[in-house]
Amino acid sequence: MSDTIQFTVTGMTCGGCENAVKMALGRMAGVEAVAASHASNRVEVKADTTRVTRAILQERIEALGYTVR
Amino acid sequence: MSDTIQFTVTGMTCGGCENAVKMALGRMAGVEAVAASHASNRVEVKADTTRVTRAILQERIEALGYTVR
Repeated sequence: MSDTIQFTVTGMTCGGCENAVKMALGRMAGVEAVAASHASNRVEVKADTTRVTRAILQERIEALGYTVR
Repeated sequence: MSDTIQFTVTGMTCGGCENAVKMALGRMAGVEAVAASHASNRVEVKADTTRVTRAILQERIEALGYTVR
């Protein structure tokens, strides 16, 4: 059972930032796919929400220094 | 007993990348300070090398999608 969880994220300013977010989230249990765009300040995560929560994903994004709005 | 461990890292292309590396490494046990520069492709870590190794630090950098040369 997977859902799509969307975040507005500021602080990503290049493709390297997008990649860091994608890789950090992509390694988490329950995460199936991650898209990130610094141009639109969007991070979209396809995840099994019985295994990972929005709060846990948000914490991981913030641990890299990006801000979730 | 802390040492300074230096890496040449490619793929960091802005301040957001530097920040992601600094924050990810800065949370690791044994790490005391981290400096990162995308302009010079350098990451410098002051760490207690009885608690964290160069290999562990490198793995963490690579897990964010950056390349250690």
